[in-house]
Amino acid sequence: MVPTDLAEALAEAGRRMDARNWVPGSAGNLSARIDNGRIAITRSGVHKGRLKASDVIAVTYDGAAVTEGHKPSAETLLHCQLYRLFPPVGAVLHGHSVAATVLSAQGAITFSNYEILKAFGFATHEIDVVLPVYENDQDIARLAAWIEPLLLREPPIGYAIAGHGVYAWGTSVEHAFWRLEALEFLLQCELERRQLT
Amino acid sequence: MVPTDLAEALAEAGRRMDARNWVPGSAGNLSARIDNGRIAITRSGVHKGRLKASDVIAVTYDGAAVTEGHKPSAETLLHCQLYRLFPPVGAVLHGHSVAATVLSAQGAITFSNYEILKAFGFATHEIDVVLPVYENDQDIARLAAWIEPLLLREPPIGYAIAGHGVYAWGTSVEHAFWRLEALEFLLQCELERRQLT
Amino acid sequence: MVPTDLAEALAEAGRRMDARNWVPGSAGNLSARIDNGRIAITRSGVHKGRLKASDVIAVTYDGAAVTEGHKPSAETLLHCQLYRLFPPVGAVLHGHSVAATVLSAQGAITFSNYEILKAFGFATHEIDVVLPVYENDQDIARLAAWIEPLLLREPPIGYAIAGHGVYAWGTSVEHAFWRLEALEFLLQCELERRQLT
Amino acid sequence: MVPTDLAEALAEAGRRMDARNWVPGSAGNLSARIDNGRIAITRSGVHKGRLKASDVIAVTYDGAAVTEGHKPSAETLLHCQLYRLFPPVGAVLHGHSVAATVLSAQGAITFSNYEILKAFGFATHEIDVVLPVYENDQDIARLAAWIEPLLLREPPIGYAIAGHGVYAWGTSVEHAFWRLEALEFLLQCELERRQLT
Repeated sequence: MVPTDLAEALAEAGRRMDARNWVPGSAGNLSARIDNGRIAITRSGVHKGRLKASDVIAVTYDGAAVTEGHKPSAETLLHCQLYRLFPPVGAVLHGHSVAATVLSAQGAITFSNYEILKAFGFATHEIDVVLPVYENDQDIARLAAWIEPLLLREPPIGYAIAGHGVYAWGTSVEHAFWRLEALEFLLQCELERRQLT
Repeated sequence: MVPTDLAEALAEAGRRMDARNWVPGSAGNLSARIDNGRIAITRSGVHKGRLKASDVIAVTYDGAAVTEGHKPSAETLLHCQLYRLFPPVGAVLHGHSVAATVLSAQGAITFSNYEILKAFGFATHEIDVVLPVYENDQDIARLAAWIEPLLLREPPIGYAIAGHGVYAWGTSVEHAFWRLEALEFLLQCELERRQLT
Repeated sequence: MVPTDLAEALAEAGRRMDARNWVPGSAGNLSARIDNGRIAITRSGVHKGRLKASDVIAVTYDGAAVTEGHKPSAETLLHCQLYRLFPPVGAVLHGHSVAATVLSAQGAITFSNYEILKAFGFATHEIDVVLPVYENDQDIARLAAWIEPLLLREPPIGYAIAGHGVYAWGTSVEHAFWRLEALEFLLQCELERRQLT
Repeated sequence: MVPTDLAEALAEAGRRMDARNWVPGSAGNLSARIDNGRIAITRSGVHKGRLKASDVIAVTYDGAAVTEGHKPSAETLLHCQLYRLFPPVGAVLHGHSVAATVLSAQGAITFSNYEILKAFGFATHEIDVVLPVYENDQDIARLAAWIEPLLLREPPIGYAIAGHGVYAWGTSVEHAFWRLEALEFLLQCELERRQLT
């Protein structure tokens, strides 16, 4: 049901995220758009750094598993939302880095004048870019509903959930990883900057 | 005496802990339950990141080596205690991370509102979870005896020994590693948070 | 057009930089001198940690692609300048480390009494060495023109662009990597030193 | 001239040190005792993380290369001294970690109550252990002469050279690496502790 190349691309992205310590335990989730009706997403309860092809399952845009018995990621609706709202999005990666978790728990996050901001399509580094931080909520449907107008009003470079982690997306799994890598780089810069005495 | 698959699982966990710099020198120890009478545990005086099958030996629940001449880990009784008190426990991992060592020497450790806390079975992130910090003691039997009522009264998500490191456990070696990974992630978040100016 | 060994050396340097998290996303660029008329440089828009031979293209000393349709790195002129000004230079590496990005955004950077400074040809450690920090500028030609007299007046051990990253060079790709590694080591030391309370 | 197994053990130790970023550029040096008359040590000007068998040469206890034309490490006399003073020493490893470099430049270093101190033969963790910090000196013969009485009076667990790095030793290359690993762990703990706000 899930194209082999897509499952392999997600497994590889998971290994790269694991190498950076962004998917501790069974945390994090990765997805990619299959077509107009289905999304490939990691199953719940597996280590995202050691994914097998069978750990990537197909879900509908409503977040329901296509195959009975499959248990998709608890955060599936947050992925589906991005594919629904933004047609160019081909993949979504969610990880838990120390920087993202610590900073998002502190409050607002703004990146100012970093060259790396150009990775998100900005033409210049002379800019202040806000990374939205949303309150965490165990009711994912409620969280997604609350986020939706915010995403539409001002499409962000990604977003963080307080004390939780970040969501990044791109046109493909590879492109999404570049965006996640750039975002985590910015977060690490901010963390280190805020530790200067 | 030690099932091959169990020895290999422990050797692999040791390599993963070593990749994170959690087993410097000959520090740390790893174990898994074999059956009602025996536990597999790493020998004393070997590097836990480079374990051979012969470095994993069998001990009784009293911590005595099953095969004469084998020298089990100095901290064997701390492992045995967990298997005895908590029947679901299938594996116990003890490592020395910088975060665990530095924070445990500072005093009490509480994790508040971290999403990753759900890795320990909590239903929500809106919670304050204490990681017990026990005073270090070279007399392991005495330390185990002192810890026992504390473990029974309020089974923790794991525990730290001051200036020493952490103990984490799970239903299998893989599950124990996820729990250790999540615990070390929380400790690293706390360390970084306490370094913000 | 680009000698195979040179392309492979650059791809390997890119992997080593990626292993250190110095080339997030498509950031960074690497080059090597081919001969009096051409320079090999990484294409724009590729991940420098996963370079294929076809990702390394030839440009003239004016920064123009030798083969039509090739899109060289946006920062090509900064590389060409170094080859033009300093005949011994055989390779130039540009990366984005967290330390370089954070410190360069803070202002001036001076390394005092570090033994590693000897990697740059100094005979002693008892010395204060300035790492120039230049203002970032999206107009690379303008930036190169502004830097040129500064480079000539006092050839530095490398330089940083504020909020961006560092440029390091050497007589070969391997030697340039050693210089970059030493420079990043110094930057990390400074970052940690400035975080002491 | 240098036994193959010894050269390979040193090359492997170099790779492990490089994986920890302890040998930036051509910094650091590694040695092992061959017999009563000769020591195997890394050549000057090579990357210690990528040693070939030919990069490990034999020197006498006076630090002179056994084979004409070989250029031993600039710091050879510091290695020879340890073999001469302490018969049990079988290997000496010198690396440049960020923690060692930053802390040694700050002044005295004392490790208090760390469990890992037992890696150096202490029976308890309830102890304060000083890591000697010697002033850096480009005249290695003079530095060695100055250190000698200090080493004899109170044989340390290792030592640091200010703004430079650490020396660690053991009965074999493997044992020396364990000691270096434990020492670097302690230094990293101290660095992080001193960054707490």
